[in-house]
Amino acid sequence: MTINAARLQSHFEAMSLIGKLGETGTCRPTLTKTEMEAFKLASSWMLEAGMTTRIDNFGNLVGRLEGTHPELPVLMMGSHLDSQPYGGRFDGVAGVLTAIEAVTKLTEQGIKPQRTIEVISFADEEGWRFNKGLFGSRGILGRLEEGELDRTDKEVITRRKALIDFGCDPDKFKESEYAPGSIHCFLELHIEQGPVLDLANKPIGVVSGISGPLWWTVKLKGMAGHAGSVPMPIRQDALVGAAEIILALRHIATQIPGAPTVGTVGTMNVFPGSRNIIAEDVEFTVDLRDIDLNRRNTYEAQLRGQIEAVCRKHNLTYSITEDWNSEPRYCADWLKQIIHAQCTHLNLDAPELMSGPFHDAMALSYATDYAMIFVRCKDGISHNPLEFASYEDLALGAEVLYGTMVEVLGREV
Amino acid sequence: MTINAARLQSHFEAMSLIGKLGETGTCRPTLTKTEMEAFKLASSWMLEAGMTTRIDNFGNLVGRLEGTHPELPVLMMGSHLDSQPYGGRFDGVAGVLTAIEAVTKLTEQGIKPQRTIEVISFADEEGWRFNKGLFGSRGILGRLEEGELDRTDKEVITRRKALIDFGCDPDKFKESEYAPGSIHCFLELHIEQGPVLDLANKPIGVVSGISGPLWWTVKLKGMAGHAGSVPMPIRQDALVGAAEIILALRHIATQIPGAPTVGTVGTMNVFPGSRNIIAEDVEFTVDLRDIDLNRRNTYEAQLRGQIEAVCRKHNLTYSITEDWNSEPRYCADWLKQIIHAQCTHLNLDAPELMSGPFHDAMALSYATDYAMIFVRCKDGISHNPLEFASYEDLALGAEVLYGTMVEVLGREV
Repeated sequence: MTINAARLQSHFEAMSLIGKLGETGTCRPTLTKTEMEAFKLASSWMLEAGMTTRIDNFGNLVGRLEGTHPELPVLMMGSHLDSQPYGGRFDGVAGVLTAIEAVTKLTEQGIKPQRTIEVISFADEEGWRFNKGLFGSRGILGRLEEGELDRTDKEVITRRKALIDFGCDPDKFKESEYAPGSIHCFLELHIEQGPVLDLANKPIGVVSGISGPLWWTVKLKGMAGHAGSVPMPIRQDALVGAAEIILALRHIATQIPGAPTVGTVGTMNVFPGSRNIIAEDVEFTVDLRDIDLNRRNTYEAQLRGQIEAVCRKHNLTYSITEDWNSEPRYCADWLKQIIHAQCTHLNLDAPELMSGPFHDAMALSYATDYAMIFVRCKDGISHNPLEFASYEDLALGAEVLYGTMVEVLGREV
Repeated sequence: MTINAARLQSHFEAMSLIGKLGETGTCRPTLTKTEMEAFKLASSWMLEAGMTTRIDNFGNLVGRLEGTHPELPVLMMGSHLDSQPYGGRFDGVAGVLTAIEAVTKLTEQGIKPQRTIEVISFADEEGWRFNKGLFGSRGILGRLEEGELDRTDKEVITRRKALIDFGCDPDKFKESEYAPGSIHCFLELHIEQGPVLDLANKPIGVVSGISGPLWWTVKLKGMAGHAGSVPMPIRQDALVGAAEIILALRHIATQIPGAPTVGTVGTMNVFPGSRNIIAEDVEFTVDLRDIDLNRRNTYEAQLRGQIEAVCRKHNLTYSITEDWNSEPRYCADWLKQIIHAQCTHLNLDAPELMSGPFHDAMALSYATDYAMIFVRCKDGISHNPLEFASYEDLALGAEVLYGTMVEVLGREV
């Protein structure tokens, strides 16, 4: 192994103390003193790696190893150091620390790349503080939406104020944006946040793409009535309708055995919500994802048909609101091939798998080729203090990232 | 028609002004000044009917027409004048006002019964203020449970204090109880609170019995996970399990076409309740009712089996808490026969039907024979300002109640 696994572990251990929650948890909200502390620690490691560091106007920490041909588009790597409010030690952190390790090792090897390398910890990937994430990665590409600076957190602090307090200047976003064509490619290592690798007993996976979700809010309206007095045949029970739709979604998402399609109803609100009153209104969300957009569109149509049929059967009315609809973003074949080759070189049998969750790479995919390396995490648990990836697996991931980076750089040497 | 329909209507109209809510609604909580105002108005009508009136220590309003043989067990009629917080004009009120009308007409006819008649507006039938109902009707039979006086409402007023403020003496409950055998029978007229009569286009129904509900709280525990990353086959989705149980309950309750069995899930709580997280915990209630206890027991066993099977299938754990389990309480055949005869006399084709909801009659059923007369209500709507019964139907019901009362009295004349 080329990278320094002991150093990488020590970096994880040191970082896990910042915003430490209980024994193994982390609470490191974006644009806070806690995140600033994390940035300072990561900066110190970037400096050791020979990089210059800065915090841009979006609140991104950027480490830069200037190439001998700084006019070339940069090789960008990274992830995020902010965490869920009740999060773990590896989500995001893994992508930043392995990228720093890769550059550190590159410098130690005496390699001076033509192409500039940047390692970024993106601001507010998680999105819970202002209820909208991928802020820093969308920001540098000029992809923010109107009103984002006016979003407030629970203490009614606007994002604008939080940015200013963090030392950023929201009036100078333009200075921190990247011109089209200025990023050569983006590499992100991340824990899988799912159980596929753990179940397959594989430490490393190659991501095929990030499946954009289709997000709906579905409202069903029936007719309330006393649970003791309305005969079953004439009920308009919105909760029975919802139950049939939940099962229809499951049936639709599982019709092709082995396909990566996932369909989820994760919320449900029942009105009036009394044990002896038939449900009149039920509201629930639908989350449908597939790496194959055509198939997802087919399934969406099937689900609409099922909702229509269920509501007709139970004499309900319904509405479907589309809250989000993003298409799958595929990883670049040439980068996947390099990663596969690196895995083969390390005798790793690395399966390809879809990423259900978002990542900063999703934002970058609109500006450049990208690829992702997944590291297995125990039982697929994430967004929870129980989140766990072994230092052995993380070191393997860092090694694959290092090799991939060198290979990408080598193509221009 | 013997009873005075115009007077009855004027009583409904006057009573509907007390605690009036919007155009057609009522909010008349138990043990409040509003209920006291209603008691005073009802008392004035009881006095006109020749009755004496008192408020007992449970907060019941009792009108008494002393018989010529006061040692005979009393013929008791009534219902309640308290309402749901967002209730209608007829629930409970119908039973009190038609009973007053029946006694008024009896007096007007110059009939002096041997048997004493009592008309009662029972305290706190609805039960929402202190979260436990049928207070007055259970109270007079010595069927209160421990701690009931310490229950509090939303303003943290105990029932004890509310009683004292209402002029009652909770230390003298014994004085307001009825000795075993002292009640000859109990008659209650009530709006159906269901759609059966309205759909059948019949103004009056004869109640076969009050089906006691079986009430459960069911908790399912699965495993949370990212909605985008946990493959469908390995999910432990508690909401999918709940959906299957909801449909199993519906299937069980409808297996005999035309049977009065009803099964309802009216509440559902999902944890963590995030659109992109698989449900880990789901809690919901089950309400199962049938006039046939053996059948209900069979269905209960079937449902337990289904819950077990669903949880095994989806790798969930579960618990079932029995919150309430009351057996059906059948109306007395001899009273039903009298009511049917009265209906036939009036050329009414009155179907027999089960009462799903509770009534004060349910409490009385443990001490005496009872019967109930149902009056149709529009679309089965109740516990809502939209609750509606026509004055024509209510007059018909009062006529049936009057005839039934006279018939019961006549048996001893």
